Amino acid sequence: MALIVQKYGGTSVGSTERIQAVAEKVKRYHDEGNQVVVVVSAMSGETNRLVALAEEITARPSAREMDVLLSTGEQVTIALLSMALHALGKNARSYTGGQVHIRTDSSHSKARILDIDGERVKADLDAGRIVVVAGFQGTDEQGNITTLGRGGSDTTAVAMAAALDADECQIFTDVDGVYTTDPRVEPNARKLDRITFEEMLELASSGSKVLQIRSVEFAGKYNVPLRVLSSFEEGEGTLITLEEEDVEKAKIAGIAFSRDEAKLTIRGVPDHPGVAYQILGPIGEANIEVDMIVQNIGKDDTTDFTFTVHRNDLDEALDILHKTADELGAREVESDDRIVKIALVGVGMRSHAAIASNMFKALAKEQINIQMISTSEIKVSVIVDEKYLELGVRTLHEAFGLDRVEG
Amino acid sequence: MALIVQKYGGTSVGSTERIQAVAEKVKRYHDEGNQVVVVVSAMSGETNRLVALAEEITARPSAREMDVLLSTGEQVTIALLSMALHALGKNARSYTGGQVHIRTDSSHSKARILDIDGERVKADLDAGRIVVVAGFQGTDEQGNITTLGRGGSDTTAVAMAAALDADECQIFTDVDGVYTTDPRVEPNARKLDRITFEEMLELASSGSKVLQIRSVEFAGKYNVPLRVLSSFEEGEGTLITLEEEDVEKAKIAGIAFSRDEAKLTIRGVPDHPGVAYQILGPIGEANIEVDMIVQNIGKDDTTDFTFTVHRNDLDEALDILHKTADELGAREVESDDRIVKIALVGVGMRSHAAIASNMFKALAKEQINIQMISTSEIKVSVIVDEKYLELGVRTLHEAFGLDRVEG
Repeated sequence: MALIVQKYGGTSVGSTERIQAVAEKVKRYHDEGNQVVVVVSAMSGETNRLVALAEEITARPSAREMDVLLSTGEQVTIALLSMALHALGKNARSYTGGQVHIRTDSSHSKARILDIDGERVKADLDAGRIVVVAGFQGTDEQGNITTLGRGGSDTTAVAMAAALDADECQIFTDVDGVYTTDPRVEPNARKLDRITFEEMLELASSGSKVLQIRSVEFAGKYNVPLRVLSSFEEGEGTLITLEEEDVEKAKIAGIAFSRDEAKLTIRGVPDHPGVAYQILGPIGEANIEVDMIVQNIGKDDTTDFTFTVHRNDLDEALDILHKTADELGAREVESDDRIVKIALVGVGMRSHAAIASNMFKALAKEQINIQMISTSEIKVSVIVDEKYLELGVRTLHEAFGLDRVEG
Repeated sequence: MALIVQKYGGTSVGSTERIQAVAEKVKRYHDEGNQVVVVVSAMSGETNRLVALAEEITARPSAREMDVLLSTGEQVTIALLSMALHALGKNARSYTGGQVHIRTDSSHSKARILDIDGERVKADLDAGRIVVVAGFQGTDEQGNITTLGRGGSDTTAVAMAAALDADECQIFTDVDGVYTTDPRVEPNARKLDRITFEEMLELASSGSKVLQIRSVEFAGKYNVPLRVLSSFEEGEGTLITLEEEDVEKAKIAGIAFSRDEAKLTIRGVPDHPGVAYQILGPIGEANIEVDMIVQNIGKDDTTDFTFTVHRNDLDEALDILHKTADELGAREVESDDRIVKIALVGVGMRSHAAIASNMFKALAKEQINIQMISTSEIKVSVIVDEKYLELGVRTLHEAFGLDRVEG
């Protein structure tokens, strides 16, 4: 008998028929002798409906009241799913985030889970009940309703699994697992049976949208085995676990990419200690996230400094950078939003320095010019012209043999 | 500076425009220097939408989960109203029933309020905030969400007013006050400036639908001055208070009536002690509420027994009564659902025995046959053929001078 936490997203519970289908699925796991906790999102469309109501009232709704409003979405789903389980003869009970003491900080709309009291849930499980918990929400120390932000239901599920010391946390989505890369770009993309937390994190942060980053971090931190699988199809999905022993061969997990990149360059900055901070400080203060950063020594004791931001933030970053350039006496400011990022991810990379150079070689063979490079322990990212996205992904997918089954 | 609790029902908050209008109204009271707590219902239509979702899932939803589902309706309204108040520059904060500790018993869908902790609300009021509270809901001792049943928002408002020792509890509805009788039946019906709790209770229990009975009982018990007024028009409404001193003259407050009546008669029951219980016991066990009861001695030491029930319960009551008749050896069972109840209500009745006879005289003059009579301290009710409803109401309205302004 295992204790399983399952999470079903908005599409999976998008209609009463689908909620009934989820109930059937949950019932099967429970019939097999497992204890099951189900975490659900709002029915798809519901959050948008609520946001539209708020927008009819005011252009700037308070974050606290927005959380009160949006948290009703999951509350509707937990009630309906519990009813559907009752209709199948199962004993089930629903709880809001507050009711099972999902305690968060007070950052409305992007709260972080501090603590979960699993006692009430455990008592229900021991009594043979299926427990249905509202994802995405909690309450702060004063009892105010908070939400974890979009996608936060994944985090609720993982945190609940950690609190209950669950055997597995299963995230049901509309894809059947984690792929070596996006199958819409590379038809030979292959579903992975297993992947490590670190690899999953790097894939997610490089644009692969299967799971919310924070939930993967959480799962890694508390070592909760995490499985991604399809709500609509049968299958084992992809299991995300701690590093496996068998990583000696240069194993690449997959290729992530992001189209939402823009690049800014400030040229001819008089070089002195602290110049990086002077350039990036004002960007950070404007809450603009900077991804890749490259600094080159230019001619005449000046330096060239390039960094990437999300494409939506380009205009604002550019305004700020122009001001900084004036203050620093820089020569010029350039920008380019027709770039993409491609990243090779794999824990095997650590012990195989050759991977980066093989990557560059494969791209060079196809005449793909690399504009920026950034490396981490288990990832190599490159910035290239956006017209090379598909070619670059397919070239690397083949060069590293990702279409072949793992050894 | 007064402390006012206001309650706005589903029609008053039926759209975002109306919620904004409510916010304007609340702001005016607050601008005048009052402390204001607002209790709101779900937006009209929302409860039906949620019920329909549940019905798509199962024909017999559990009462606990139904409460989890339906309580989201008010939660949406409190968030939107708070946002609308913010947009008008007011400091406002929303609370669900559970958040302000509206503690109830565990009777899901018809819970009773046991206790309210007003401390959190008081702290907000003292900080200059308008407090917006979800009506109709609370939590039981275990933290389960409960609802008070339809119309329960009135009760929430009154209970909140009692807990806060408020100066007045104002119930905003789609009528502008309490009338001497239904203006659709008697065009000369007059709005009352004041009425006593007892009169209001009798009016409500006799079919006048302005306020939920339980909320009036509660207001009477805790002596909370209650005012009924219109959401849509200006005006002072009707104030419901403790008995006034000036009741010596035979004051009739109004005339209530109900079309939902049905009458059952069992004839020729061998008379012996306990026969009333033998007849009504099985009816009560079936949860059918009995209103008026009349027992007459018939011929041959047998008795005739007549009582009224809600028209919807007639068929079930008739089945039960037929069985009872067989057991008791009664002669026959009759029923009539083409009857109505008309009731004259007023605290002045206590000291004026002549009122009942004046009532019967006025009806007799119009050839209206009285089928049953029942009297309480401040009410005289009669059952008549339904074709006499309008004529009966108008006749009594004129006979007791209710169209004339109170002296």
